[in-house]
Amino acid sequence: MSYTESWSGKINRKLRKKLHIIDVAAGRKKADLVLKNATYVNVFSGELETGDIAVAEGLVVGLGDYEGLVEADMTGKVVCPGFIDAHIHLESSLVSPSEFARAVIPHGTTTVITDPHEITNVMGTDGIDYMLSATENLPMDTMFMIPSCVPASPLDESGADLDYRDIDSFFDHGRVLGLAEMMNFPGIIGADDKTVSKIIASQAHHKKIDGHAPGLQGKDLNAYIAAGVYSDHECADEEDAMRKLRLGQFIMVREGTAARNLEALMPLIKSPKYFSRCMFCTDDKHPSDLLEKGHIDYICKEAVRLGADPIQTVQVACLHAARYFLLNNRGAIAPGYLADFAVVEDLKDFHVVTVYKRGKLVYSDGAVAEFDTPAIPAYLDAQAHDTFHLPRLSARDFANNRRRCVIGMVDGQIITEDKGYADAVDVEHDILKMAVVERHKNTGHIGIGYLQGYGLKEGAVATSVSHDSHNIICVGCNDEDMAFAVNRIAENKGGIVVVKNGSVVAEVPLEIAGLMSDKPLREVNDLLENAKAAAHALGVGTGIDPFMTLSFMALPVIPTVRLTTRGVVDVITQQYI
Amino acid sequence: MSYTESWSGKINRKLRKKLHIIDVAAGRKKADLVLKNATYVNVFSGELETGDIAVAEGLVVGLGDYEGLVEADMTGKVVCPGFIDAHIHLESSLVSPSEFARAVIPHGTTTVITDPHEITNVMGTDGIDYMLSATENLPMDTMFMIPSCVPASPLDESGADLDYRDIDSFFDHGRVLGLAEMMNFPGIIGADDKTVSKIIASQAHHKKIDGHAPGLQGKDLNAYIAAGVYSDHECADEEDAMRKLRLGQFIMVREGTAARNLEALMPLIKSPKYFSRCMFCTDDKHPSDLLEKGHIDYICKEAVRLGADPIQTVQVACLHAARYFLLNNRGAIAPGYLADFAVVEDLKDFHVVTVYKRGKLVYSDGAVAEFDTPAIPAYLDAQAHDTFHLPRLSARDFANNRRRCVIGMVDGQIITEDKGYADAVDVEHDILKMAVVERHKNTGHIGIGYLQGYGLKEGAVATSVSHDSHNIICVGCNDEDMAFAVNRIAENKGGIVVVKNGSVVAEVPLEIAGLMSDKPLREVNDLLENAKAAAHALGVGTGIDPFMTLSFMALPVIPTVRLTTRGVVDVITQQYI
Repeated sequence: MSYTESWSGKINRKLRKKLHIIDVAAGRKKADLVLKNATYVNVFSGELETGDIAVAEGLVVGLGDYEGLVEADMTGKVVCPGFIDAHIHLESSLVSPSEFARAVIPHGTTTVITDPHEITNVMGTDGIDYMLSATENLPMDTMFMIPSCVPASPLDESGADLDYRDIDSFFDHGRVLGLAEMMNFPGIIGADDKTVSKIIASQAHHKKIDGHAPGLQGKDLNAYIAAGVYSDHECADEEDAMRKLRLGQFIMVREGTAARNLEALMPLIKSPKYFSRCMFCTDDKHPSDLLEKGHIDYICKEAVRLGADPIQTVQVACLHAARYFLLNNRGAIAPGYLADFAVVEDLKDFHVVTVYKRGKLVYSDGAVAEFDTPAIPAYLDAQAHDTFHLPRLSARDFANNRRRCVIGMVDGQIITEDKGYADAVDVEHDILKMAVVERHKNTGHIGIGYLQGYGLKEGAVATSVSHDSHNIICVGCNDEDMAFAVNRIAENKGGIVVVKNGSVVAEVPLEIAGLMSDKPLREVNDLLENAKAAAHALGVGTGIDPFMTLSFMALPVIPTVRLTTRGVVDVITQQYI
Repeated sequence: MSYTESWSGKINRKLRKKLHIIDVAAGRKKADLVLKNATYVNVFSGELETGDIAVAEGLVVGLGDYEGLVEADMTGKVVCPGFIDAHIHLESSLVSPSEFARAVIPHGTTTVITDPHEITNVMGTDGIDYMLSATENLPMDTMFMIPSCVPASPLDESGADLDYRDIDSFFDHGRVLGLAEMMNFPGIIGADDKTVSKIIASQAHHKKIDGHAPGLQGKDLNAYIAAGVYSDHECADEEDAMRKLRLGQFIMVREGTAARNLEALMPLIKSPKYFSRCMFCTDDKHPSDLLEKGHIDYICKEAVRLGADPIQTVQVACLHAARYFLLNNRGAIAPGYLADFAVVEDLKDFHVVTVYKRGKLVYSDGAVAEFDTPAIPAYLDAQAHDTFHLPRLSARDFANNRRRCVIGMVDGQIITEDKGYADAVDVEHDILKMAVVERHKNTGHIGIGYLQGYGLKEGAVATSVSHDSHNIICVGCNDEDMAFAVNRIAENKGGIVVVKNGSVVAEVPLEIAGLMSDKPLREVNDLLENAKAAAHALGVGTGIDPFMTLSFMALPVIPTVRLTTRGVVDVITQQYI
């Protein structure tokens, strides 16, 4: 039996720590750690200051002249508060949260706010619990916003359908900060009970609500904000951002893999008036992008390159997200704040050399300090590795006895075109068969259509990363390879496969909910790059990301036509074709 | 039996309101109120904007072009968010919270954060409950910080002695924002358990802790802030304020009756970098000061006169206190924010013409709209009117058979000098007898000393407003008038009296805990001004406030010598003389 702490016991335990903090700050005891001769960014005064940074109990306790049990000389470096990513779907990295942490800690990230939207569309609230478990006590604090749109659209067949009652208890969790991006802005503006109730619940728990409303304006924007949406990360231009800032929203300036808005929003970052309402986020970061560019450190470097004041940039990267999310003890180097530091060579390249998390050295000399991967309750781990519930398929399941809509890809864009009808694959004219196979609830639903513009000449490509419901989407030149590909994904418990003549050419197993791998990021990236090459070798156009492109083909909220488990949908009319 | 609302019931009730808000914002329904053609201060963009302000359910719901069931034309006026006083002891106004509200609503104040330090030193936690009751549903939101120092000093004999357990449950109250000014900074820096525990308790409830540490610096300041003190309102100069701002504290720029720091801190208000960490407060506002100058509107006018940007000034007066106290729906004019407005003629004189609170007109055409004085539970009201527990005194009780210390007043200052000893009144040489009579617990303690510099020539002056324990302090030329004065105060249940030859010359009854009157501010002020004149007529020096001066003579935390219920204290050594 475990001892349940009394309230007095809690106060007393915290008091003991606090007395130690005070003793160290007052100079009566040596600090646990002192960063000596540090040049550090003061995010409150907007200055570079110099002095010792004393740490005790994982917190900064004093600035000035201190002695420590451990001392580290910071001469010639600049100490920044640890960086904060204000909005990310960790699943987009294709690796587990632990491996994500191992990948971004070297970039100075000490806090991320994640929306487990993808895994929750697969596993329902078990997905939230899985991610909470998988991030417990990581050396990178992982805060949560609870997915607001599961499923993303009523046309979707996802693994769960959550109303406010399903998510209500999560708002009491200490690492849950509110309701994640409310993508269903038509539902809010239209005053839909079920949608608005989720905002009410988050507010009733005194938590935040993030927004997602590209280009919204006028009375619709008033209605959306009045409903209780406090931020937006979908601003693609200055006008859009300023409209939202003026109406009180905080602006998350997004620079990720799929969407990059930093350059367009630089006028806000550069402005001494507006930057205080801005923070950085990535939304989605794919493996190669993380490895090649970095994380928030990369955004800082880019912002400064584009003309931002370096200290303002650090304020945007640290303090403002903390203030927005009411995380009142992080994002700054000051007494009482978490001893989370990204030590950089300078405020130009933001090359991170050392990282501290709660006063512990977690990255130095090019290596992340060892840490235990969080233990996940057995039942959750088992469930996360058993999310494919569909029959074994054969070529017959992909046979087609009628005309189907042809979805046309548009060069370099995420939107599609309606290209009429086809009734058979025509590789010559780049007409491929496409299928979305329901994989959550054994419904046997298989939606079939055709795709033009992908370029595949033989075999099939399939992926279980398929926004936002993450059914299996498959494109192929023949029904046999398509069946083989889908079956292979189910065998692998998820992931990506490239198939030719009934055998696997390349694959990326993503065994956690069909979305993430337990392997390190670099390994997953190697598999992924190999699979991309294999897909291109089978004919997929060189300008096309073979898997990311597919992963959006089943998302019935982006125009013009999309393929769901029930067939092709006209996104504009929200009708099946 | 009253119906206790279920959680679902609460969500549903809030949902109904929210759906109405959305309908109005989206333009499908008429607003409850529209301020037409408003020029308003946008505290997010730092601009003056123009448009209609639509209100529903007490909230701003839209900005732009709206129709309302009620419309008010704002042409030629400037609409500001309602002003916020970040720190005030309401008791200092000498009137009840209702009467205080009636006095400051015409000045555009829609929110105050009060520290009921005075009444709590008299009534203990009953004093907090009394003030919470007395402010419930006022047309001026009254938030609370819970007194941290009761008694203010161990040398004091106050009405209560509160540790963290005594105040712990108050942090759960919806209008309690944290722990009030931690004046006992030596206790914090010295890591005193009992003192630090109160901070721990407030933090454990995720609430704020206000500071009070004039001139603190170096490691002591680090220790005080590391302990968890988030703000300071005692900065008397730019250097002091910048030291605290740099270490992460929010700066409350105080401009009240007794202490006025605005001019000294103008560099912060004027700075585009620092002003965002600043807010306004008054700390103490006496009746004549409220009537003659105003409240936060007066501070705004002064700030602009001293060179501040008018819009930055409004941001300091509204948004920043709201952000500091995590009151995330006030301090701005934007969708979802409280419809609290101070309509002014211009941003120079800040002359308030109309005030709205939660969308209701509460001040216009020079008159405050009628409102019900909050009902106070009978037992609390009875207790607040029965706080004098002392025997009836006679001249013998003030007789003096030994030499006593002479406390010397210093012209225009609050500090005192040690002027040696006396053993009798000597009106010729301005040596008066002074007594502090314990009045909370019938201890019979009467501390006696002498006072030089007050100027009284005959009779006696006494007051039960006597910081911070609010015992009865009395100065007199003879023992008979002193006894009469003290007895009269007890009969009146508190207040101020001026006595001559065994009869009352003037008096101000303060029947609520001996600190406040139930009468309107103007009446109390008339009585007070009359009493001042009477005291001056009896000889009190013209440069001296006859009662405020006395009220600090018993506060054993301000150098050099003070009089307590147990005798004269050397404040420096904290020893009785």
